Amino acid sequence: MNELTLDAPQVRKFLTGFIFSQVTRAGLRRAVLGLSGGLDSALACFLAAEALGPENVLAVRMPYRTSSPDSLADAQKVIDATGVRSLDVEITPMAEPLFERFPDMNNTRRGNVMARLRMIVLFDQSAANDALVVGTGNKTEILLGYSTLYGDAAAAFNPLGDLYKTQVRQLAAEMGVPASIIAKPPSADLFVGQTDEGDLGYTYEQIDRLLYLLVDRRLTPEEAVAAGFEAPMVRAIIERIRRNQFKRTTPPIAYLKFDVPGWDFVHV
Amino acid sequence: MNELTLDAPQVRKFLTGFIFSQVTRAGLRRAVLGLSGGLDSALACFLAAEALGPENVLAVRMPYRTSSPDSLADAQKVIDATGVRSLDVEITPMAEPLFERFPDMNNTRRGNVMARLRMIVLFDQSAANDALVVGTGNKTEILLGYSTLYGDAAAAFNPLGDLYKTQVRQLAAEMGVPASIIAKPPSADLFVGQTDEGDLGYTYEQIDRLLYLLVDRRLTPEEAVAAGFEAPMVRAIIERIRRNQFKRTTPPIAYLKFDVPGWDFVHV
Repeated sequence: MNELTLDAPQVRKFLTGFIFSQVTRAGLRRAVLGLSGGLDSALACFLAAEALGPENVLAVRMPYRTSSPDSLADAQKVIDATGVRSLDVEITPMAEPLFERFPDMNNTRRGNVMARLRMIVLFDQSAANDALVVGTGNKTEILLGYSTLYGDAAAAFNPLGDLYKTQVRQLAAEMGVPASIIAKPPSADLFVGQTDEGDLGYTYEQIDRLLYLLVDRRLTPEEAVAAGFEAPMVRAIIERIRRNQFKRTTPPIAYLKFDVPGWDFVHV
Repeated sequence: MNELTLDAPQVRKFLTGFIFSQVTRAGLRRAVLGLSGGLDSALACFLAAEALGPENVLAVRMPYRTSSPDSLADAQKVIDATGVRSLDVEITPMAEPLFERFPDMNNTRRGNVMARLRMIVLFDQSAANDALVVGTGNKTEILLGYSTLYGDAAAAFNPLGDLYKTQVRQLAAEMGVPASIIAKPPSADLFVGQTDEGDLGYTYEQIDRLLYLLVDRRLTPEEAVAAGFEAPMVRAIIERIRRNQFKRTTPPIAYLKFDVPGWDFVHV
C-alpha cells in the first residue's frame, strides 16, 4: 500500500460510468478501440465491454509486418475473455508506400506513421459503426508525452488518462485482464525489441512515484531530490513534461484581439 | 466596408510576427505546410514565406488520384510566386489499400481518410526537416466544424484561425495571392464536383455575416433573425457550432478527483 494504491472496485465503477455517459451523451451506444495486445488497451477493452455490453464494443487489431505475433495472440485473449466484436486491419499495405518513398526514415518517424495509420482506421470504423473511439493513454504516458500526437493519443474520450501506469496494472488485475498481459514488459511494439522502460530510461515504478510527487503533490524539484530521487532523473522528467505540453493542448490560434491589453491592436 | 473588413496591412504584420514567434520559440527556423491549390493554404504559404524566408518553408502537394489537375497547377503558382521549397507526395498508394478493404466506404469517410493521410505526410516531413506544421483552417471552418479532426485541422499552430473565410480573401488580395486562386469556388477537392458552399448550403458571405453576429457580437438567435437572417439558417448554423465543439477541444479525460465536490469520491 502506498499513495498510488487504488481503491480498484470504486475506480472500476467510476470509469465504466464515465464510458457509458460519454457514449450515451453523444447519442450513441457503441465504442471502438485499437487492441494492441498491451495492457492499456486490454484494460480499456474490459472497461468498455462492462460499460456498454460486449456486443457494443468493436476491438480492432492493426498489425504491421514487424508486429510481434505475441501481440496478436494477447489481443485475441482479450477478445475471447470479454466477448467483444473484433476486426483485423493490416496497416502494412498503407505504410509501405510512404516507407518506400522515404527510405531513410528512422524508427521514430516510422513509429509515428504507424500510430497515425491506426488512428485513421479507428476513426473510420467509428464512422462506419456509429461508435466513439476510446482512448487508451495512461497518465504516465500523457505527462511524459510518450505517445504520438494525432496517433495513439487521438480519441473521442479517455477513461485511463488519470491512471498512472502502475495503477493501470492494479485496475487490470481487479478486472480480470489475463495475467500474462499484466506481467509482460510494456512496449509500443513499433519496432522489434522496443520496450517502454528502455525508451524512457527508468522503470514505471520509479517514474510514477516521482510523477505523483511532482504533479499530484506539487513538490518542487529540490523537494523531490530530498525525497530520495536523483537530481538528473528529476530534471529529465520535468523537462519531458514541459517539452511535451504541446501534445496536451489544441494548436494555438493567432487571435486578432482588439480588446485585450498587451496584444497587437487590429481592427476586425 | 463593413464589420468584416480587415485592416489587411496590419493583420499581415501581426500574423507574420505570430508565425515567426511560434517557430522560433520552439527553437526552430522552418515550417512545413500542405498546399492544396486552395485559398487558405495559399495564404498560409505567403504568410510563412514572408515570416521565415521562402528557403525555410516547405510546401507539400499531396494529390489523390481524383484530385483536380487545376489544384496542382494552382499550388504550383503559389510555389513559384513565393519561392518556397516544394515536395510532391501522392497519397493514392496509401489510401487505396483501405478503400479496397472497405469498398462500401462513402465519400465522407474517404475524404476523412485522405485528409488524415495528408496529416501523416506533413507531420512526418516536419520531423524530417525540424519544422513546424502550419495550420490553414480559417475561423468559419473551425466554427462550423467543416474540417477533419486529426486531418486538415491538425497543426503545430494556426495563423488563420481567427480570420473568417471572407477575411482570408481580403488578406490574400493584400499579399498578392494569384487572383485566379482568390476567385475560384472554394472546395475541399475530396471528390469530384465538391464545393464548400454546396456542402454547407449557404454562401460564405452569408455565413460569415451571421457568424460575426452570433460569435463576435454575441447576438441571440432571435436578434440574428431580427437582423435579417432566416430562422432555419440561424438554427442550422448554431447547431453546427454546437455539434462540432468536440473538434475544438482535447478528448475528455476521466479525472479521478477526490477533492472536487460533486465528483465521485475516489481514493488515489
